[in-house]
Amino acid sequence: MTIFVEKKKFMFRTHHCGELNAQHIGQHVTLSAWVQRSRNKGKMIWIDLRDRYGLTQLVFEEGVTSPEVFEQAQKVGREFVIQVQGMVIERVAKNPNMPTGDIEIKVEALKVLNKAILPPFTIEDQTDGGEEIRMKYRYLDLRRNTLKDKLILRHKLAQEVRRFLDEQGFLEIETPYLIKSTPEGARDFVVPSRMHEGQFYALPQSPQTFKQLLMVSGYDKYFQLVKCFRDEDLRADRQPEFTQIDCEMAFIEQEDILNTFEGLAKHLFKKVKGIEFNEPFSRMTYADAMRLYGSDKPDIRFGMQFVELKKLTDKKAFVVFNSAEYVGGICAKGCAGYTRKELDSLTDFVTKPQIGAKGLVYVKYNEDGTLKSTVDKFYDEADLKEWAVALNAQPGDLMLILAGSTAKTQSALNELRLEMGQRLGFRNPEIFAPLWVVDFPLLEWNEDAKRFHAMHHPFTSPKPEDIHMLSSEPGKVRANAYDMVINGVEIGGGSIRIHDSELQQLMFKLLGFTPEQAQSQFGFLIDAFRYGAPPHGGLALGFDRLVAMFAGIDSIREVIAFPKNNAGRDMMIDSPSPIDLAQLDELSLSVVKKG
Amino acid sequence: MTIFVEKKKFMFRTHHCGELNAQHIGQHVTLSAWVQRSRNKGKMIWIDLRDRYGLTQLVFEEGVTSPEVFEQAQKVGREFVIQVQGMVIERVAKNPNMPTGDIEIKVEALKVLNKAILPPFTIEDQTDGGEEIRMKYRYLDLRRNTLKDKLILRHKLAQEVRRFLDEQGFLEIETPYLIKSTPEGARDFVVPSRMHEGQFYALPQSPQTFKQLLMVSGYDKYFQLVKCFRDEDLRADRQPEFTQIDCEMAFIEQEDILNTFEGLAKHLFKKVKGIEFNEPFSRMTYADAMRLYGSDKPDIRFGMQFVELKKLTDKKAFVVFNSAEYVGGICAKGCAGYTRKELDSLTDFVTKPQIGAKGLVYVKYNEDGTLKSTVDKFYDEADLKEWAVALNAQPGDLMLILAGSTAKTQSALNELRLEMGQRLGFRNPEIFAPLWVVDFPLLEWNEDAKRFHAMHHPFTSPKPEDIHMLSSEPGKVRANAYDMVINGVEIGGGSIRIHDSELQQLMFKLLGFTPEQAQSQFGFLIDAFRYGAPPHGGLALGFDRLVAMFAGIDSIREVIAFPKNNAGRDMMIDSPSPIDLAQLDELSLSVVKKG
Repeated sequence: MTIFVEKKKFMFRTHHCGELNAQHIGQHVTLSAWVQRSRNKGKMIWIDLRDRYGLTQLVFEEGVTSPEVFEQAQKVGREFVIQVQGMVIERVAKNPNMPTGDIEIKVEALKVLNKAILPPFTIEDQTDGGEEIRMKYRYLDLRRNTLKDKLILRHKLAQEVRRFLDEQGFLEIETPYLIKSTPEGARDFVVPSRMHEGQFYALPQSPQTFKQLLMVSGYDKYFQLVKCFRDEDLRADRQPEFTQIDCEMAFIEQEDILNTFEGLAKHLFKKVKGIEFNEPFSRMTYADAMRLYGSDKPDIRFGMQFVELKKLTDKKAFVVFNSAEYVGGICAKGCAGYTRKELDSLTDFVTKPQIGAKGLVYVKYNEDGTLKSTVDKFYDEADLKEWAVALNAQPGDLMLILAGSTAKTQSALNELRLEMGQRLGFRNPEIFAPLWVVDFPLLEWNEDAKRFHAMHHPFTSPKPEDIHMLSSEPGKVRANAYDMVINGVEIGGGSIRIHDSELQQLMFKLLGFTPEQAQSQFGFLIDAFRYGAPPHGGLALGFDRLVAMFAGIDSIREVIAFPKNNAGRDMMIDSPSPIDLAQLDELSLSVVKKG
Repeated sequence: MTIFVEKKKFMFRTHHCGELNAQHIGQHVTLSAWVQRSRNKGKMIWIDLRDRYGLTQLVFEEGVTSPEVFEQAQKVGREFVIQVQGMVIERVAKNPNMPTGDIEIKVEALKVLNKAILPPFTIEDQTDGGEEIRMKYRYLDLRRNTLKDKLILRHKLAQEVRRFLDEQGFLEIETPYLIKSTPEGARDFVVPSRMHEGQFYALPQSPQTFKQLLMVSGYDKYFQLVKCFRDEDLRADRQPEFTQIDCEMAFIEQEDILNTFEGLAKHLFKKVKGIEFNEPFSRMTYADAMRLYGSDKPDIRFGMQFVELKKLTDKKAFVVFNSAEYVGGICAKGCAGYTRKELDSLTDFVTKPQIGAKGLVYVKYNEDGTLKSTVDKFYDEADLKEWAVALNAQPGDLMLILAGSTAKTQSALNELRLEMGQRLGFRNPEIFAPLWVVDFPLLEWNEDAKRFHAMHHPFTSPKPEDIHMLSSEPGKVRANAYDMVINGVEIGGGSIRIHDSELQQLMFKLLGFTPEQAQSQFGFLIDAFRYGAPPHGGLALGFDRLVAMFAGIDSIREVIAFPKNNAGRDMMIDSPSPIDLAQLDELSLSVVKKG
């Protein structure tokens, strides 16, 4: 046998750019990295060298540095990749703000590993590049610390998620990506099959049915960090492909799931953010969340809960309130001094088409105890005092009131509450307020289709105590379904599943499936339930959203290495794109141009 | 705020079926699991209860067990899901072969959680189900220990891969699944875009270009366990979707990559198999591997290397050998006693169409020192002695010789060597012989297309010392490319990449790309290299193949939870399948039926 081990001839670097400090003074080192910037003061040149780990300052001095190296140093530009050898020396002007700020490298040799042309925007924390150009040159944008830090955070979170679940006995099991299209739910991306003419795979919107089958197979704790796909008309901050922490457990109840994944969230907060939650997460029913916050994902970093005022407002003959299905208000502490301009901007806010309130009623509870409202014509001070008591308003506070149909008004009041929370600084991204919202409705009425849709998905089980209403009042049936909400963002959700073949078939019927449709689309699952299915349930957390939350930002695009734009296009690789006719032929497809 | 914590009302199980032993005797426990089998001896009933963790025996005794429970126990069938409460008692007839063999559960309460109809095959280690029915009911097949153990092994390997790479400073970064189709390499699966008429995404065959861009972005150690897709005509044991351990590093040389991933392999062997490799892995050049084993993935668990005999055989006038480009042999130790039948079966083996040798020449070196061959007419004992010396054959050995064109004959001799290794018991799946094959050719000639193809891929860098031959003798240029081979199986491979924009363009030209084609398909990469690309390289390991290797089996299908069959079809969910016309319309596509 011919065995050999090559000798090490050459080493690109002995250290990276984030680690050298006063302890290394006097050492000879080799670094390979990018030129962040260069300052040429004639006799002295300083270069900041950058890699993933940090910055290290290089110094070249005329007369001290060899003339060839000094000349080379004059020529290297931004983003050149260079290798330098030199000695670590103490800096004269130390920079206490950077880990390597006590030292610099007195360079003895310099080699250009690769030149760089001028980037189309500056590779700095504050860049001059607009979003479009940065998407096109994503590989340059990813050099910026702000993106780099988020991808490192994402990596840490992914490792900790797996570590925690592995230790809890979960098995990571990969489910297929080439599956089957189902019309229920969002639109599928499909993949034409070359070998089966006219047939298609679909990319999974989630591994839902597969993880349930794994429960039937006896793998009682499953998880996966997995890409999912939805061909939706993209709204801001939606991506056609996204990552899910997908989990399922058997022989459990809702309480076990909530405890397990509350444990996961606490583990992540502790390991990654250094935040310890010693108390159980808050819990709230869906009904309460809607009543008190007008949202199924309330931001509970602050109070400002809704108070229904209809009984009080009906005492007088103000037609706007009296004809309204719902009158509700919130109390903005210490805002009685709002100027006319500020109050007008709130009215403008709630009457925007996206929010859609007809108008805003406010009551100032002045510091001197007097009350001043936009409805003084209809309500006297005694009435307003009653409202103040209901809203727990004190002198100095501002009461904001909306009226109209219940759902729309609660929704608008939710937006107003969030806006006020923002203005009052209650929505600090470094404060985390997790919440379980439970007891979601099983079904929601779809006015367009004139039928019920599954609020979560068709496999969610009704609460046993509500099953008797399934036929008579399906809209009132609550599900064993729950969402994890942090700071007003739905991080994920799940449910206890149906594990009974007959109940599952009844559910499909309620959702408008014919028995044939149910069998052709989900026959394998209905069949599987006949061979001994255990009670089971699970949840899925949006990993992109979780990372963004931990990073304190709203946009998931910032925590994805290569995201697509709002038109579902990868600007960098210019995809989607036309394919060869030969490829289409092989797939037995032709493109039909629309008028 | 409405906060509440639900009380725990009910618990499905206090223990699982693999953990109870003599220490638990006297404890009251609750178990929920599947009925593996039931033995009814009239007055006594034993049930083996099965879950992911093991088996626990339940016992019911007439007159001792309550009549209702005893009656229930008579009715539960195979694969029923039941919950039992009872006391752990010592078994009379202990079973030392199972962890719970010292105890059984004296059942006090039994609840059927879900019934089961009779499975279409037995859920036993040795099942009576054929492959097709087991694929259709994969969720039942997955209940069998043999598959379960492999998925658990897969989980462990995945966790250890990530743990090791994370500790080495690698960042796990997700690359997109909806990318762009490129005609180079295997055939892509494509995904029609609804929003961009007539345009398509493609599913990645590997994240190759993205990981190289991450190097350009400065993420100097990247990894990902990632699904990849190839629309190939499936051969046995290929899957249209498969999983890769995908890695890339910057500021490294080939030696760094080999060391790092040899470290990973050693870590996995130690942690998962308890096998320590204290010596460096063997290394072999591609040229030597072909010369000595006729394969770029030699199984070095045993020797039996090829010996070229052309110079010796040319001494006499045997036209078959003299007209052959190549004559080579192997020595099968201790096989001189092979019967005529055994030798005939070897001839049949090498002359099979898949192997394609014209015939087999053998020389028996008998225990008494005499030599007997199928070519005694042409070569005398002195000639054969010379061959024996060359092949290092001793009395008792059998020499097997093939002749013909070099590539074909070496390939056939490789098959013969592996077959002999198998017959002689040298291919023990519990022995692991890892090997690096290095110095692969950069290009290979494609006779059909009359042009060179990249042997690895178009981004592989030529060895600097061979670059001068790129234009004159491209076929002779070696690449900085390497494969990890274990027991004759290519576990993975990689290369040092081109990081120079001009060399990359030259490479595309050599591969027959016009500048326009290169720009339209890989323009983003060529562009990226202009903005400061570091030296980089990497590798990808086939994760399915690695798991199969660790499991001691050949088929990757056994280590994938939901595999597809040889026609690329998921038999369980019946996919691919036709989609609605409305879906096709939305995608601006129509199916063109082929004559």
